[in-house]
Amino acid sequence: MSKKKYVYFFGVGKTEGDGSMKDLLGGKGAGLAEMTKLGIPVPPGFTITTETCNDYFNNGSKYPEGMWDEVLKNMKMVEDLMELKFGDADKPLLVSVRSGAKFSMPGMMDTVLNLGLTDTTINGVIKRSNNEKFAYDAYRRFITMFASIVMGVDRMEFEHVLDKKKEKTNVKFDSDLSADALKELVKEFKALYKKKVGEDFPQDPMEQLKLAINAVFGSWFGERAKTYRKLNGIADDLGTAVNVCTMVFGNMGDTSGTGVAFTRDPSTGEHKFYGECLINAQGEDVVAGIRTPMKVEELKKPMPKAYDHLMEIYQSLEKHYKDMLDLEFTIEDGKLYMLQVRVGKRTAAAALKIAMDMVDEGMIDKKTAVLRVEPQQLDQFLHPMIDPKAKLKKLAKGLPASPGAAVGKAVFTAKEAEEQAEKGEKVLLIRLETSPEDIGGMHAAKGILTARGGMTSHAAVVARGMGKPCVAGCGDLVIDSKKKTCTVKDTVIKDGDWVTINGSTGEIILGETKLIEPAVTGDFAKFMGWVDEFRDMGVRANADTPHDAEVALKFGAEGIGLCRTEHMFFEEDRIKAVREMILADDEAGRRKALAKILPIQKKDFKGIFKVMKGKPVTIRLLDPPLHEFLPHTDKELSALAKDMGVSASKLKERNELLHEFNPMLGHRGCRLGVTYPEIYEIQVQAIMEAAVDLQKEGIAVIPEIMIPLVATLTEFVKLKEMTLRICEDVIAKAKVKVEYLVGTMIELPRAAIVADKIAQEADFFSFGTNDLTQTTFGLSRDDAGRFLPFYVDNKILPEDPFVSIDIEGVGALIKMGIEKGRSTKPKLKIGICGEHGGEAKSVEFCYNAGMDYVSCSPYRVPLARLAAAHATLAKKGSKSTTTK
Amino acid sequence: MSKKKYVYFFGVGKTEGDGSMKDLLGGKGAGLAEMTKLGIPVPPGFTITTETCNDYFNNGSKYPEGMWDEVLKNMKMVEDLMELKFGDADKPLLVSVRSGAKFSMPGMMDTVLNLGLTDTTINGVIKRSNNEKFAYDAYRRFITMFASIVMGVDRMEFEHVLDKKKEKTNVKFDSDLSADALKELVKEFKALYKKKVGEDFPQDPMEQLKLAINAVFGSWFGERAKTYRKLNGIADDLGTAVNVCTMVFGNMGDTSGTGVAFTRDPSTGEHKFYGECLINAQGEDVVAGIRTPMKVEELKKPMPKAYDHLMEIYQSLEKHYKDMLDLEFTIEDGKLYMLQVRVGKRTAAAALKIAMDMVDEGMIDKKTAVLRVEPQQLDQFLHPMIDPKAKLKKLAKGLPASPGAAVGKAVFTAKEAEEQAEKGEKVLLIRLETSPEDIGGMHAAKGILTARGGMTSHAAVVARGMGKPCVAGCGDLVIDSKKKTCTVKDTVIKDGDWVTINGSTGEIILGETKLIEPAVTGDFAKFMGWVDEFRDMGVRANADTPHDAEVALKFGAEGIGLCRTEHMFFEEDRIKAVREMILADDEAGRRKALAKILPIQKKDFKGIFKVMKGKPVTIRLLDPPLHEFLPHTDKELSALAKDMGVSASKLKERNELLHEFNPMLGHRGCRLGVTYPEIYEIQVQAIMEAAVDLQKEGIAVIPEIMIPLVATLTEFVKLKEMTLRICEDVIAKAKVKVEYLVGTMIELPRAAIVADKIAQEADFFSFGTNDLTQTTFGLSRDDAGRFLPFYVDNKILPEDPFVSIDIEGVGALIKMGIEKGRSTKPKLKIGICGEHGGEAKSVEFCYNAGMDYVSCSPYRVPLARLAAAHATLAKKGSKSTTTK
Repeated sequence: MSKKKYVYFFGVGKTEGDGSMKDLLGGKGAGLAEMTKLGIPVPPGFTITTETCNDYFNNGSKYPEGMWDEVLKNMKMVEDLMELKFGDADKPLLVSVRSGAKFSMPGMMDTVLNLGLTDTTINGVIKRSNNEKFAYDAYRRFITMFASIVMGVDRMEFEHVLDKKKEKTNVKFDSDLSADALKELVKEFKALYKKKVGEDFPQDPMEQLKLAINAVFGSWFGERAKTYRKLNGIADDLGTAVNVCTMVFGNMGDTSGTGVAFTRDPSTGEHKFYGECLINAQGEDVVAGIRTPMKVEELKKPMPKAYDHLMEIYQSLEKHYKDMLDLEFTIEDGKLYMLQVRVGKRTAAAALKIAMDMVDEGMIDKKTAVLRVEPQQLDQFLHPMIDPKAKLKKLAKGLPASPGAAVGKAVFTAKEAEEQAEKGEKVLLIRLETSPEDIGGMHAAKGILTARGGMTSHAAVVARGMGKPCVAGCGDLVIDSKKKTCTVKDTVIKDGDWVTINGSTGEIILGETKLIEPAVTGDFAKFMGWVDEFRDMGVRANADTPHDAEVALKFGAEGIGLCRTEHMFFEEDRIKAVREMILADDEAGRRKALAKILPIQKKDFKGIFKVMKGKPVTIRLLDPPLHEFLPHTDKELSALAKDMGVSASKLKERNELLHEFNPMLGHRGCRLGVTYPEIYEIQVQAIMEAAVDLQKEGIAVIPEIMIPLVATLTEFVKLKEMTLRICEDVIAKAKVKVEYLVGTMIELPRAAIVADKIAQEADFFSFGTNDLTQTTFGLSRDDAGRFLPFYVDNKILPEDPFVSIDIEGVGALIKMGIEKGRSTKPKLKIGICGEHGGEAKSVEFCYNAGMDYVSCSPYRVPLARLAAAHATLAKKGSKSTTTK
Repeated sequence: MSKKKYVYFFGVGKTEGDGSMKDLLGGKGAGLAEMTKLGIPVPPGFTITTETCNDYFNNGSKYPEGMWDEVLKNMKMVEDLMELKFGDADKPLLVSVRSGAKFSMPGMMDTVLNLGLTDTTINGVIKRSNNEKFAYDAYRRFITMFASIVMGVDRMEFEHVLDKKKEKTNVKFDSDLSADALKELVKEFKALYKKKVGEDFPQDPMEQLKLAINAVFGSWFGERAKTYRKLNGIADDLGTAVNVCTMVFGNMGDTSGTGVAFTRDPSTGEHKFYGECLINAQGEDVVAGIRTPMKVEELKKPMPKAYDHLMEIYQSLEKHYKDMLDLEFTIEDGKLYMLQVRVGKRTAAAALKIAMDMVDEGMIDKKTAVLRVEPQQLDQFLHPMIDPKAKLKKLAKGLPASPGAAVGKAVFTAKEAEEQAEKGEKVLLIRLETSPEDIGGMHAAKGILTARGGMTSHAAVVARGMGKPCVAGCGDLVIDSKKKTCTVKDTVIKDGDWVTINGSTGEIILGETKLIEPAVTGDFAKFMGWVDEFRDMGVRANADTPHDAEVALKFGAEGIGLCRTEHMFFEEDRIKAVREMILADDEAGRRKALAKILPIQKKDFKGIFKVMKGKPVTIRLLDPPLHEFLPHTDKELSALAKDMGVSASKLKERNELLHEFNPMLGHRGCRLGVTYPEIYEIQVQAIMEAAVDLQKEGIAVIPEIMIPLVATLTEFVKLKEMTLRICEDVIAKAKVKVEYLVGTMIELPRAAIVADKIAQEADFFSFGTNDLTQTTFGLSRDDAGRFLPFYVDNKILPEDPFVSIDIEGVGALIKMGIEKGRSTKPKLKIGICGEHGGEAKSVEFCYNAGMDYVSCSPYRVPLARLAAAHATLAKKGSKSTTTK
């Protein structure tokens, strides 16, 4: 093994690293190296590698052998270059110590400035700057940062002392403090340090450096950093680099300054240099927001040379990096130094505009443009957002169950939601949980908020299907539906109070918040056109109504991958007949009720087929257990009994009889079709009659009839035989030709295991990954809320498996199902229709597993299209992976 | 392809088949061929093969080409041998046509006797027998049989006419009818035939034969035959053979007779020829039970020669077959003919005695003896049985949930069961379903009957564990617990009415039925000793108490494979502390309550360890969701609140909070251990403290601590770390050495899929096939009762997967789990602790899959031992398979 190199030098054109070494040097270190290489002025320094950080942790929080020697060697090189000396009383070198991981983690990692200042070196600083005030200001800042970041003392302790000093000396701003006051302050800070830390403030710069490096390493496993990594799917073992860099001072007077800038507008994407700066300030002052920064253009007057230099640099850097950049700079006594360059974060709108502009400008090609927009960004793009400028009173956080923001007056029943909405009120429906009877109210509401249920609870699934914002499973919500109030921690929300929810983040906000409607401009359509050029997997939508189907088409769906017939059963004009069917004593009674449903279902299907104009429509036969169609409470049951003209006791008895301990694992899906064939028969008949009617009108129809919850070949064969019999009968009577397929959901582990057998008979497979995840994990999506968040927080699971496919477990079954299915029928058409079909990482998995298409809620179709294009490009080597 | 042979001849020492050809000739045909070969007198005839039957069905119910020619050729050979002619007016040949499948299916297939009789041939019969009465009696019997069996006319139609005739001629018995009366009857029967069938009674013997053969073939798919095959696991595609055999007449006068016999007593196994016969009667008269048959010994006097011949034949046949045989014979005019030989069915007790006697007699070796007893027979053997002679009023059938019969007075609450039992009453507990609170009542009752729940419902599992008979999930039961009555179809069972259940068959019987207690004699122990000589897989028991452990040891368990700690939590002395724990607001409160549980749990474990004396004991940490420990109804909750000194509303709120939609997939198993580590910590502490205490007393202990419901390696690692920490702490404090293992259940599909990873850390795997079946199928065992019976009845599933492992699906996951686990840890200890561990076919599967042991309820241990021995011998080639 060759000797490991722990430290990389950079300074004045000389550099050991470059911009490609992000893994080893972190984003910041690689940027500094690359800029140095390009001849851009960067204060000399060195980067301790990310590997060193891992070695440090693997070595019981001790430096690996030889590392410190390398640090000393590099420090010497910096000293030589700067003609300064670390710890010198005359010409002291001061440095900054900053973290820098591979992925930009803003605000997550900590920085120490002015390191090297001691009671000795301060004299050199005073001498060199000829500015005592500046020197003591730097020292007091350093003590504060060092104490808080390195030693863990509460920063506020120092702020209190500072405030007292300002009060005493009767000044308003920190910058108004005199040199003497700052000098006193340094004394007081050192005393406070000793009191809090139990030791004197270190006067050995090397000890300062060591402690600071340790603190940077340590912050890698700080809570904030861990949380950020978890939220962004960044691995724990990447480690952070440490950048030790010569200090340059933006606070050396009026020819000094510091600022941050983006090469284009990060909110809108406008092609315009966009930055803010402060004159006579250190970097932290910009971030702290104590002084109001000025626009970067305003530098032109006081520091024209530095400003021109900055303009020149930003353009050459953007040309070099071919992307919008985020820059940090400092001007020390009129001389510009670049402190950081990285690819800038941007909103979805900006990402799209920048990508498209850069294609127009000839900087990048279409493929690169497509890769520049992250699929999950599109989700944000297609829904109303909370105005970023709005001041929010955040009450609590639930699950981000359906994206977008919604504002409305609180209502606590579906009925009230409908009534209020009819009067023109904007309402927000707040429920313990929703059930199918709430659908009308959910439609009427602007958004839905529930106290119970997970990402795939009824509320979440239905809301996503409707494209309606929803925050689900907010455990902090205590709802008193009688009193029509809801308590969130200490706040009571009353009937009619304004509430805002952010379905993209899960936040619940008190009050009427301003929303922004993002415009789906012509550019969006153009961009999606490019996306489709690089995509070679189909994208369909889950849609249950002609309206859903229209939305799906608008968003580019190439078919319907899942049309859930049960949602049709709940509609007001047929729920009574459905209930009659359920309460019938025998098959004859059921058939009588079903006969009433037939023409209505037929109309439903005709509506959808008409919209889809020949595109495939996958219709799933009835899936939920029958008791879902009955009301739950005794009161509701009594009312229903009266309405149906049956005895309440009979109805209760039937309801009792239908009760299930584990409805998820109960009498549902094809088990209904096997035991009550008449239900499926009527559904198939409705589908085929709709198809032949339209075919006669000249509208092509390709129904794909899908049998849910199949566990064995025999179940499928039995129901396929029935389906063919009914279909052929309808077709024979109508005397027209209709192509149709009969396939199955693969949503139980057993189905995946015997997929080779099922494929003997099935025309297609559609993976139902919600149920497959539930059964593979033995995890009810409705009950998981009680421990799944804990599991994700504590890394027992890397992610919520209902959000992103559990590739190791559920994914293995999906792969097995596909391999086995195709071993029998090599061209078997295979797709996915679970919630995962609209999540970027899952879409990539589906593509790599060999699926023909994914299907997701209409509003997620663009996301899925983009994710599919990314997956295609990644496989072709244009992109390593969509995951971090 | 060589030409297929459809028909095999046998007659007077000449035979084309032999006893080994059961697949092709059926059991009966092979027996007839073998006897012919041995020189034993058998009426000549021929067998149409089982393959012909399959060809017939595959050929649209038409004879395969060439088959009829072979029939004619063989008929000619019979005619030549008998010097008779089929259809001849002078010397007519009459034949019987009987079915004969590979496996004996008593009463399932239909037989036609006296075939060949017509208005013409009757004259020859009269002439040859010189007995007009006999001839017309034969004719009227033939018409009845032909009409009912071949043409499907209700037999009762003929019986009515017969009865009228007897009335008219004023005779009591059929045999008293005069020749003239019988002659008239034949006329009337033919008229009735014409009226019912619409055609004349066929006068062409060849047409009769064809129709009869078709009827035998057709009966293969008759409802009774299909049901029998389903119940006995016999494949549908075996087909039946048809035996056409020269008629010999037991009803030719007082030197004729017919009978059935067993070479040993089929009930007790006693070494004594055991048979019944009738003089001057045809075979059907014996079966019909119209005349009371005499003991076969009584033949000695009237027909000494035939009797001696029979004695000689039975002995030589038993010696030849080396097994107890079931024989049918007819004596025609003093000459003995054997009509059938087959291995005789026997009770468990007889099977055991015969096998052991034959070893003593030197007829078979021990290995063969072990193979002669079917594992499932032992189950019957170890429980009380209903007296076979008792007249039963069967009301309905539920699931045979826990074997054995029980008699008691109906009670409808657990409380009442306990009260009545204390007064010395025998009670039978009837419940809609049972819950953990019913345990006391279940203990007190003689047996348990439930209206709901499957083979692995609470009632079933607990009853099997207690060795208490149980019939579960009887859908015909409508319980009115208020009125304390229960309606079964038209019968109302009131509080205190005597009820009998047969937990081995699922039957529910009205009244107080006599039971027989089978004696577990010294022979049983000796036999089980032989069994263990041939077994090379371990057998453990599932046991939760010292008492269970004692029973398990008595039945030969080699350890405890599953000790369920939740059952301990329900005991009266701790349920209050358990509830305090559940209702505690925080960890401190839970720990306080758990501290009360610790010493009690420790005592439980000490008791079990003491009994098991160094044998391994696998203890599963808490598995069920916490709400299972709270009462369900508002009333009970209020009472509890009062008792616990908390507000009823708080208790209800907590109960509401704990409610789960799908508790099976909820917050249970290791998910409890992960989120409330203190619960598992206290359990581990109790286990280890018990172990060290006993170790100090010199009693060896090998606890195997088992983590339930693991889905990911991380879960297991987290809990293993906790376990090791607590164990090492207890061991260090006690300063003794205790060996222990930490392993996991594999009971979720995901666990099987990632078994290679889990095996990195787990010391052992125990497959929980109940939950694995539930999740693999997506099938709740508690809810499956609504459609699973339909599935099994309609062959959508070959068997209830909760009874016998679903080898195709669940079995594939088990194999995957074992292979993956052993790929990481080749010597990984692997067992099964689901209900399947006590079912013969599943035990065989487990053995072949490579498990180290099976674990089952104590009462099933002997069954499992025998099944394991059979599996071992089957693998070594001594037995093809235990399954049919």
